[in-house]
Amino acid sequence: METFGRHLVLEMWDCDREILNNAKRLREILRKAAEEAGATVIRVFCHEFNPKGVTGVALLAESHLTIHTWPEEGYAAADIFTCGQHTDPQLAVQYLISSLKAKDSTTFELKRGSMRTREVAQQSA
Amino acid sequence: METFGRHLVLEMWDCDREILNNAKRLREILRKAAEEAGATVIRVFCHEFNPKGVTGVALLAESHLTIHTWPEEGYAAADIFTCGQHTDPQLAVQYLISSLKAKDSTTFELKRGSMRTREVAQQSA
Repeated sequence: METFGRHLVLEMWDCDREILNNAKRLREILRKAAEEAGATVIRVFCHEFNPKGVTGVALLAESHLTIHTWPEEGYAAADIFTCGQHTDPQLAVQYLISSLKAKDSTTFELKRGSMRTREVAQQSA
Repeated sequence: METFGRHLVLEMWDCDREILNNAKRLREILRKAAEEAGATVIRVFCHEFNPKGVTGVALLAESHLTIHTWPEEGYAAADIFTCGQHTDPQLAVQYLISSLKAKDSTTFELKRGSMRTREVAQQSA
């Protein structure tokens, strides 16, 4: 069955805490990560929380890239969801891990809109 | 181990195709879905593609809510990622399924930042 998109769920630990709290820098990182994946950026928006943490999104012609950071924990949660054969979200994953200097990370992939997603849903029910 | 957030992955099939192609309406639906979940909306943005399809995001104080639609297939992919005990992303899921008139849907939950995510990643490796 056709898949509508590749969605990579990325967990990053032991990241650089200063970068995790720098909305301006994360905005640049999101944009560059999307470009690395071969995606076209429609808009990037980052919000800095008080006292700490940043939440950001790059809306793409091919879906989205999001990040949420917990600087006090050194943790960041990212999602890279892209459509089309011309994109490779794994390249954005590698760029994010490198840019945030994550010492530990896990990634797993969801095939959105496919039967596989339905099977995963049933397994976790 | 602590969980940083609940991430619900929502697949919707056989939706109302006119709604799936209406960026203005989807923008309202995203905002209302976030409110249903008890979340605080920072910003909502929707982009309409030519000839068809909408991609949208609600950036939340508690993370994000995204949607991507394929009107010609009646399919929509949504993600609802919220932090904090005051939010319940399942309420946003129910609101989205109802608003898009999805006749078929699946949902599964990821505990972001927890060991479980790491285990899921290992299982799918």
